[in-house]
Amino acid sequence: MSNPKNAIYAQSGGVTSVINASACGVIETARRHSTQIHKLYAAKNGILGVLGNELIDTSLESDADIAALKTTPGGAFGSCRYQLKDPTQNRAEYEKLFDIFKQHHIGYFFYNGGGDSQDTTFKIATIARELNYPLQCIGIPKTIDNDLPFTDNSPGFGSVAKYIAVSIKEVGFDIAAMAASSTKVFILEVMGRHAGWIAAASGLAATEKGDPPHIILFPEIAFNPDLFCARVKETVEKYGFCVVVAAEGIKNENGKYITEQGMTDAFGHQQLGGVAPLLAGLVKSKLGLKYHWAVSDYLQRSARHIASKVDVEQAYAVGVKAVELALAGETGVMPIIVRKNQTPYEWKIGTASLEKIANQEKKMPMDYISEDGFGITKACWDYIFPLIQGEDYPTYENGLPKYVKLKNICVGTSPA
Amino acid sequence: MSNPKNAIYAQSGGVTSVINASACGVIETARRHSTQIHKLYAAKNGILGVLGNELIDTSLESDADIAALKTTPGGAFGSCRYQLKDPTQNRAEYEKLFDIFKQHHIGYFFYNGGGDSQDTTFKIATIARELNYPLQCIGIPKTIDNDLPFTDNSPGFGSVAKYIAVSIKEVGFDIAAMAASSTKVFILEVMGRHAGWIAAASGLAATEKGDPPHIILFPEIAFNPDLFCARVKETVEKYGFCVVVAAEGIKNENGKYITEQGMTDAFGHQQLGGVAPLLAGLVKSKLGLKYHWAVSDYLQRSARHIASKVDVEQAYAVGVKAVELALAGETGVMPIIVRKNQTPYEWKIGTASLEKIANQEKKMPMDYISEDGFGITKACWDYIFPLIQGEDYPTYENGLPKYVKLKNICVGTSPA
Repeated sequence: MSNPKNAIYAQSGGVTSVINASACGVIETARRHSTQIHKLYAAKNGILGVLGNELIDTSLESDADIAALKTTPGGAFGSCRYQLKDPTQNRAEYEKLFDIFKQHHIGYFFYNGGGDSQDTTFKIATIARELNYPLQCIGIPKTIDNDLPFTDNSPGFGSVAKYIAVSIKEVGFDIAAMAASSTKVFILEVMGRHAGWIAAASGLAATEKGDPPHIILFPEIAFNPDLFCARVKETVEKYGFCVVVAAEGIKNENGKYITEQGMTDAFGHQQLGGVAPLLAGLVKSKLGLKYHWAVSDYLQRSARHIASKVDVEQAYAVGVKAVELALAGETGVMPIIVRKNQTPYEWKIGTASLEKIANQEKKMPMDYISEDGFGITKACWDYIFPLIQGEDYPTYENGLPKYVKLKNICVGTSPA
Repeated sequence: MSNPKNAIYAQSGGVTSVINASACGVIETARRHSTQIHKLYAAKNGILGVLGNELIDTSLESDADIAALKTTPGGAFGSCRYQLKDPTQNRAEYEKLFDIFKQHHIGYFFYNGGGDSQDTTFKIATIARELNYPLQCIGIPKTIDNDLPFTDNSPGFGSVAKYIAVSIKEVGFDIAAMAASSTKVFILEVMGRHAGWIAAASGLAATEKGDPPHIILFPEIAFNPDLFCARVKETVEKYGFCVVVAAEGIKNENGKYITEQGMTDAFGHQQLGGVAPLLAGLVKSKLGLKYHWAVSDYLQRSARHIASKVDVEQAYAVGVKAVELALAGETGVMPIIVRKNQTPYEWKIGTASLEKIANQEKKMPMDYISEDGFGITKACWDYIFPLIQGEDYPTYENGLPKYVKLKNICVGTSPA
């Protein structure tokens, strides 16, 4: 039997409150199979750390610290926004990658990210086959946007969904108390450039008719200022106040974002923000109602303190499964979450080919949005409901969650 | 012995995640003294409910529902932004108030609010004495702004402080992971018009040198764009990223708010917002760094899911004490929180005269702000630290906190 190969694990794209739970699943499972996986390296800052030969030796981290990843938000090894170009355009980059793989006897590559990142994983798997380089190349799903295809849901989404639903439920109690003589309209801007999954999750906060949120604005539905203002007015007249949740990516009827900040990220995505103050301005100028607005931004995706237990378990499970798939000789695949049963909710981990996943976006089904375009349907509620179940509190120390910072010692560097 | 009198309890000003814990303390204590307090009414929407003769009969609420107030955010009976005018200016309003008191045999009045509200409480106590109307008039402290004098801290502040410190700790893990190839500057706008208490609380998130937040902007310190940009640049160069927490009320060197939304509330306070995008614009135009920004707004003051246990206990305790003071024949006073010992933190409930409290604002001591104006000192850390201790999770049902909605049946109306 040949010497066991080494492995690389890397995190990519926007981090979440549970991507480290996937890292934990990968590392703990690799440790249990040390006869097959010798060293597990974590690339510093995603694929950039592979290209830059910055590989963290995870064997220098204690079992306790690795276990603590399960309750720590952010990306423990650093993430990146960097997409490998098409091999025909930048062959040199791939050659560098495989040089590093050879140099470190890498036989396993795990890439933890969203659609763009799985495109990278797929390209690497393809080149490995072309080069006859023996590599088990496995994608691990992650994205708060919930837009990965094939998987029933993406790890990371459930916790954001829970955070937004909890926040809207709470703020609803606040506005309800203030509305008689003060704030009547509250607007929360949530993430979601192309798909309204996160905005939709706010709908879970409503359990009785009239409960907030009263209006949800989806990127999928062209924003019409007149219809919006009419609905705000109607809601305030009916319930005394109006809670609005708006996805950052809402567009006008011409498909243009109603606001943009101008900068774009490495993938060419526009960096958005400022929908909430824009809507607030509309409420003020057209309706003269007192308003408040909030923008959750990164708070929503790092809020490990209110993570969904189901989400944490699934994030961990896809990490475990990724290693199991690699050890079973699979490549070019990604573990996915399969909904086995709706009530009671049961799930299992399946597998999908990266070829089919890369660069595909799962849109919200149109029958998840109510006919008036301002709310979610029962089908949507049924879909999201199981994903926000359960609490998985971190431990606290001195009033704050106890999150782990790893030593992160790169190969070839000496411990501090 | 004369028939027991009735009581009115009312909530005023911006609500908090723990003002209902004070309500719970009042109602549970009143129920234990039913020989002295016959009916406890809750005014609908604060003093407006007294003026409008909208009094909720709290005896129609179950013990379980009243107990659940301890874990429910918002204001269960409705609050208001309405300040009684000076008696010389609007005598009729006071006459109406005392007509209602007489009509309902009110012998006790409990007003739960901040500085403006305690001014109202004081005025009512004064007029009662003038009219020889027997009234035990007791203020109950509440404000996230922590600006009530005499009390060591105000119920409501500790939970916002915890929310902000936890959020900044979490988001710091996020940005740290992204900074190599993406967002380098993150800005969170927090509440605080005149005092930087909430912004200061973010400083608790830092436990090691270099931990976020790197820059705190206080209303007490004139904002200097050049110094700010220089510090952001320096921080990014040193740590790879920069987390900024800005109070909504930061002002330029002429004492003008650096941004305003134009509308004012009933007390003439300017309704602010938009400091975060303004700072982000500065970071972009002057430094060209990739940024993200968030605005917590009402989310921070309604986040009961991450309330401070100390805060909940103190909010409850001032409610209990208010009733005890009233039963002891006191009037024109407010229970206050007294810090008995720093380490270990010990507190007790004391009493202060409303005459001294009304319309006074407790400022941040200048020695709580570091010399460079961008951080907090050890003295500030020591002061806030005990106030964020302990978690007091609400119970969850179907993935969401189980908050109570009372029946809120007004006297003279029939149950639904």
